[in-house]
Amino acid sequence: MHILILGAAGMVGRKFTERLLHDGRLGANAISKLTLQDVVAPTKPADTRIAVDTVTCDFAVPGAVAPLVASRPDVIFHLAAIVSGEAEADFDKGYRINLDGTRYLLEAIRAVGDGYKPRVVFTSSIAVFGAPFHDKIDDEFVLTPQTSYGTQKAIGELLLADYSRRGFLDGIGIRLPTVCVRPGRPNKAASGFFSNIIREPLNGEEAVLPVSEDVRHWHASPRSTVGFLLHAGTMDLKVLGWRRSLSMPGLSATVGEQIAALARVAGPKVTARIRRTPDPVIVNMVASWPRDFSTARAREVGFTTAETTFDDIIRIHIEDELGGKFVA
Amino acid sequence: MHILILGAAGMVGRKFTERLLHDGRLGANAISKLTLQDVVAPTKPADTRIAVDTVTCDFAVPGAVAPLVASRPDVIFHLAAIVSGEAEADFDKGYRINLDGTRYLLEAIRAVGDGYKPRVVFTSSIAVFGAPFHDKIDDEFVLTPQTSYGTQKAIGELLLADYSRRGFLDGIGIRLPTVCVRPGRPNKAASGFFSNIIREPLNGEEAVLPVSEDVRHWHASPRSTVGFLLHAGTMDLKVLGWRRSLSMPGLSATVGEQIAALARVAGPKVTARIRRTPDPVIVNMVASWPRDFSTARAREVGFTTAETTFDDIIRIHIEDELGGKFVA
Repeated sequence: MHILILGAAGMVGRKFTERLLHDGRLGANAISKLTLQDVVAPTKPADTRIAVDTVTCDFAVPGAVAPLVASRPDVIFHLAAIVSGEAEADFDKGYRINLDGTRYLLEAIRAVGDGYKPRVVFTSSIAVFGAPFHDKIDDEFVLTPQTSYGTQKAIGELLLADYSRRGFLDGIGIRLPTVCVRPGRPNKAASGFFSNIIREPLNGEEAVLPVSEDVRHWHASPRSTVGFLLHAGTMDLKVLGWRRSLSMPGLSATVGEQIAALARVAGPKVTARIRRTPDPVIVNMVASWPRDFSTARAREVGFTTAETTFDDIIRIHIEDELGGKFVA
Repeated sequence: MHILILGAAGMVGRKFTERLLHDGRLGANAISKLTLQDVVAPTKPADTRIAVDTVTCDFAVPGAVAPLVASRPDVIFHLAAIVSGEAEADFDKGYRINLDGTRYLLEAIRAVGDGYKPRVVFTSSIAVFGAPFHDKIDDEFVLTPQTSYGTQKAIGELLLADYSRRGFLDGIGIRLPTVCVRPGRPNKAASGFFSNIIREPLNGEEAVLPVSEDVRHWHASPRSTVGFLLHAGTMDLKVLGWRRSLSMPGLSATVGEQIAALARVAGPKVTARIRRTPDPVIVNMVASWPRDFSTARAREVGFTTAETTFDDIIRIHIEDELGGKFVA
């Protein structure tokens, strides 16, 4: 089985690649080849039984993605995107990468023809939903993005469904919760602070909290996120009918609950490193973001539960990223 | 006030143009200029106090729409589209006209800049919804198109909302019911038979009914449709927040109820001209179409009720299109 990952150098892409290389298979199928694409050079893993190609290119340049699908990968994970903050700051860039790029990918697949019909896993986002909404957003709630990023993801979902219905590919869109705790340095995602306030204090550093503690949000760990991708890459998609995108399980928690969990897991000296500096721009953006979901459909089709306590999310971060240790 | 109509030569475009010329104003504003665009030459009305420009061009060719918005029309009615049957039959053409064309329009408006922020009325469609759905589709139901046409309209709605939110224009998308009775000759819309079975028999001609009589659908007359456009062009859009598209009022009726109404209004000799010839392709398409709506939101913001009986829809057709007469 040949797997192509677009956006392989991003945080989720790297974690997912590691997992695929570790497993050597996707579901029942041994992986023979892995193609890793990103706009920054993906790290070529050493010492692997699997043939790994790395491709450094901007997939949203016309023609760039065609060579990647010409070799007919069996499964394509499309993780490439400009994040929410950047798509909001740079209107043209967001549409070029998140909309045009996605469409070029789908068109390149269609152009291969000759019975080629790969599985395409598209990482969508809970940003496809915007206020006003119910306390829990269910599987039949209208798409009402209130960011350009969310708009571009919602359009990607619609295209994916139509290309699937027309038989050009077999697509599934998974709306990821905010991935928390995101390892590494802060990126331009406006949601970054949800991770920063956990990660930086555990590293002995200060973190800025730009919103109030009663802000509620929807989280899943990187480990759960990788699990969602694996299931999306292997499950039988017929059960979805033509509704090809669905919200992934997650944990609904307030910022206050996050901080309380951090105090329990790591102690009050760690939480004391959180500095409260309200940022009206972020406060305003966050106000329109989803807070909680009913993900019955995802659970029915085998997407297993994400974490059930924020303590677990923090413990997973300490285990997977910090070798079990933190700066107390 | 300068008004631009894209797709002015279509059935709805022609009826709407007639009405604007008749009224001489849109809401409180006198119309000083009307620009009529279509890919086939729009008829230049004779004998009008209003300056009328006609432009024959394919608005979905890159660059074609820029000259139309360069003169900064105050209100733009975007009625141009490839219909459902054709968009399904010709994948590329549907995406080119219905998606790329719409995006070129929005981009051309944005490119004018310098405070230009026109009202944009986009005719969307109930085809943005697809089965399975509730008996009545409400204003918060998820967009689940099951045609390429519906997908393209749903994407148009999302773009319109984002461009409005970003302040590039002031947009409203109105999801028209199936316009019935559609005058003139059959077009390539798969929904054409809903009109054909009324129009052709009233003209003394046979019409083919390709589905069973228990098929339920959502209708509004051309007269109501023009009323929706007028209101969309004049109402205060602030009440919509960033949810800029909404389903218009209509009448839910089965094909059997349509035929019974025709028998009441025009007699059994007329209904005897309906020939039942099931077409599995159309039966299959129609099975995924919406049947009934709860349009509370549209009514709240002033879109007045469409017809309440199919008898009225037929009478309006006889009045507006047939000079009060039909072939008994």
